[in-house]
Amino acid sequence: MHTDRAHDHDPTDRAHDLRHHGDVEVRDDGAQLIDLAVNVRADTPPAWLRERIAGSLTGLAAYPDGRAARAAVAARHGLLVERVLLTAGAAEAFVLLARALKVRQPVVVHPQFTEPEAALRDAGHTVERVLLREADGFRLGPGAVRAVPEDADLVVIGNPTNPTSVLHPAAVIARLARPGRTLVVDEAFIDAVPGERESLAGRTDVPGLVVLRSLTKTWGLAGLRIGYVLAAPETIAELERAQPLWPVSSPALAAAEACMEPRALAEAAHAAHRIAADRAHLVAGLTEFAPDGLRVMEPAEGPFVLVRVPNAVAVRRHLRDLGFAVRRGDTFPGLGEAWLRLAVRDRATVNRFLQALDQAVTLAGR
Amino acid sequence: MHTDRAHDHDPTDRAHDLRHHGDVEVRDDGAQLIDLAVNVRADTPPAWLRERIAGSLTGLAAYPDGRAARAAVAARHGLLVERVLLTAGAAEAFVLLARALKVRQPVVVHPQFTEPEAALRDAGHTVERVLLREADGFRLGPGAVRAVPEDADLVVIGNPTNPTSVLHPAAVIARLARPGRTLVVDEAFIDAVPGERESLAGRTDVPGLVVLRSLTKTWGLAGLRIGYVLAAPETIAELERAQPLWPVSSPALAAAEACMEPRALAEAAHAAHRIAADRAHLVAGLTEFAPDGLRVMEPAEGPFVLVRVPNAVAVRRHLRDLGFAVRRGDTFPGLGEAWLRLAVRDRATVNRFLQALDQAVTLAGR
Repeated sequence: MHTDRAHDHDPTDRAHDLRHHGDVEVRDDGAQLIDLAVNVRADTPPAWLRERIAGSLTGLAAYPDGRAARAAVAARHGLLVERVLLTAGAAEAFVLLARALKVRQPVVVHPQFTEPEAALRDAGHTVERVLLREADGFRLGPGAVRAVPEDADLVVIGNPTNPTSVLHPAAVIARLARPGRTLVVDEAFIDAVPGERESLAGRTDVPGLVVLRSLTKTWGLAGLRIGYVLAAPETIAELERAQPLWPVSSPALAAAEACMEPRALAEAAHAAHRIAADRAHLVAGLTEFAPDGLRVMEPAEGPFVLVRVPNAVAVRRHLRDLGFAVRRGDTFPGLGEAWLRLAVRDRATVNRFLQALDQAVTLAGR
Repeated sequence: MHTDRAHDHDPTDRAHDLRHHGDVEVRDDGAQLIDLAVNVRADTPPAWLRERIAGSLTGLAAYPDGRAARAAVAARHGLLVERVLLTAGAAEAFVLLARALKVRQPVVVHPQFTEPEAALRDAGHTVERVLLREADGFRLGPGAVRAVPEDADLVVIGNPTNPTSVLHPAAVIARLARPGRTLVVDEAFIDAVPGERESLAGRTDVPGLVVLRSLTKTWGLAGLRIGYVLAAPETIAELERAQPLWPVSSPALAAAEACMEPRALAEAAHAAHRIAADRAHLVAGLTEFAPDGLRVMEPAEGPFVLVRVPNAVAVRRHLRDLGFAVRRGDTFPGLGEAWLRLAVRDRATVNRFLQALDQAVTLAGR
């Protein structure tokens, strides 16, 4: 169902479990693990947001009316409402893109979040992969841009990319656009980047551009299923036709509207700076500690860090025994068992984690 | 995109607005209308259920885990979990059925809820219609069963049927089943029928049976998006593959689990009996009042009643002026402008409505 495309082939070409996600690494264990596997900001949603959502529960008997939330999202990005579609999380957007658009030759740039490819394959498409290279720091260079076939009519890339934490320059991503091609940029984590640097949201000058955004990670709304798509009105209309009626619940709409308010945007901006500081602390700790062969992918710009660790499988197992869940890397095409993804947490948690990692590496090396 | 099938052709063959729903008749008016247009039980959700849902908000940062709710639904119907799929409302189920199953010749039995046909058409299918006749009381008789083409591989019918309020005998519906055919029975309103008489939920002896259930109407959860599908494990697996990841939100899962508890089932059973009494009051009032040419479709078994009224367009307009919203009938294939659907409300509301209807009919007749 898929073919790997040169630039860099997946050397083992084994079937990845594209449907593996970090939440399983936390939930399927009776033990209370400290979670560095799921990329959702800790201590979320904030109390004020939870109250706003709770306030919507009195109106549950009415069918959802998404107009106010849609208008709020459009205003936040300086776009017409016709360029906005609210979705039940980015996951619904991936399914809509895979099923509603007339696509013949989709290409996914890996390593990245696996759900877009899984949705395309489930919709019957043959998916080509372009694999970014560790030697290039998993950055989208001119070689990778050239490796995307000219006749690809759907290209999917993440920015910042999960799990590599690479933030591609917007100008380089825009080079992937072509007339007749849909260019999907998954910006699920870009609100964790100070200033949302390199975001293409709000741009109307890039042909075929589709930007996906999430409220899940920064606001701790993974359980609520809310995200949105920004694209040309014709594309939005096509995706909307494939949506079920009332696709987003009233509590999720209330949350979306609340998260577009100036207070919320200021809080998200503040959180982005704090994440950057906490990430610097994590990266410094990893670098200083640096067991033989550990490599931190830098610069990391998302709320998570990708590391290559000797004996990573054993290290991850020992980390679990020590009470820490981290995300395995081997389910991401272009990575392998040597890789682990670490969610950025506060300094105290990071310090405890670094100690545990030290022990786990020692135990794994025996 | 559709063809009407003999038995009874839609005489005007005009394009119906299949995407018109009762919620629009209530919301797009600044005035506070008394709502007899939307088939959601009044004063819902109950406080205990709202509290259960509110309790789920503390866990919103985690991705939804549908296992407990799925197990609860399976146990409630005495089925294996492999025969259950939770969906974001019945609306998502219609889209999944239209897009995930390999269907060549779908047939929809009308008049009925229009969303199944709309979803099939949006998925690119040519939909045939079998129209039940007013002369037959819109009942599924042997003629209608014969009118379904033998090679139809998907047949959709509602029970009790929205908007006719007809409850078809389960045995007659089962006669529509064939090897190689998917028989979709939309039981969105059957929990409003005392004893859930004529329900096919839990049956495993009808080939190709797919039962859709809703928690929206009885529990006032239209805003939350929750329903479920009961079918053979292979069908459930096919539908599940076409679902987005995490299709149902955590608050909706909490509600589903709560609504399967013995207390909730007892409350729903009690509500069904109260609805039957209130409906009898409404029907008696309509019959007694009976302006020339008014016809009530009987027996009505759902939480709504279908009536044919002279000058219905004007009557509906006057009812709005008098503060009452009712559901127009002309967007349902097989009906027309003469028809109105009335949601069953409590006796006091019904009495006020009957007075308003009296005035509206008089005003419309001038």
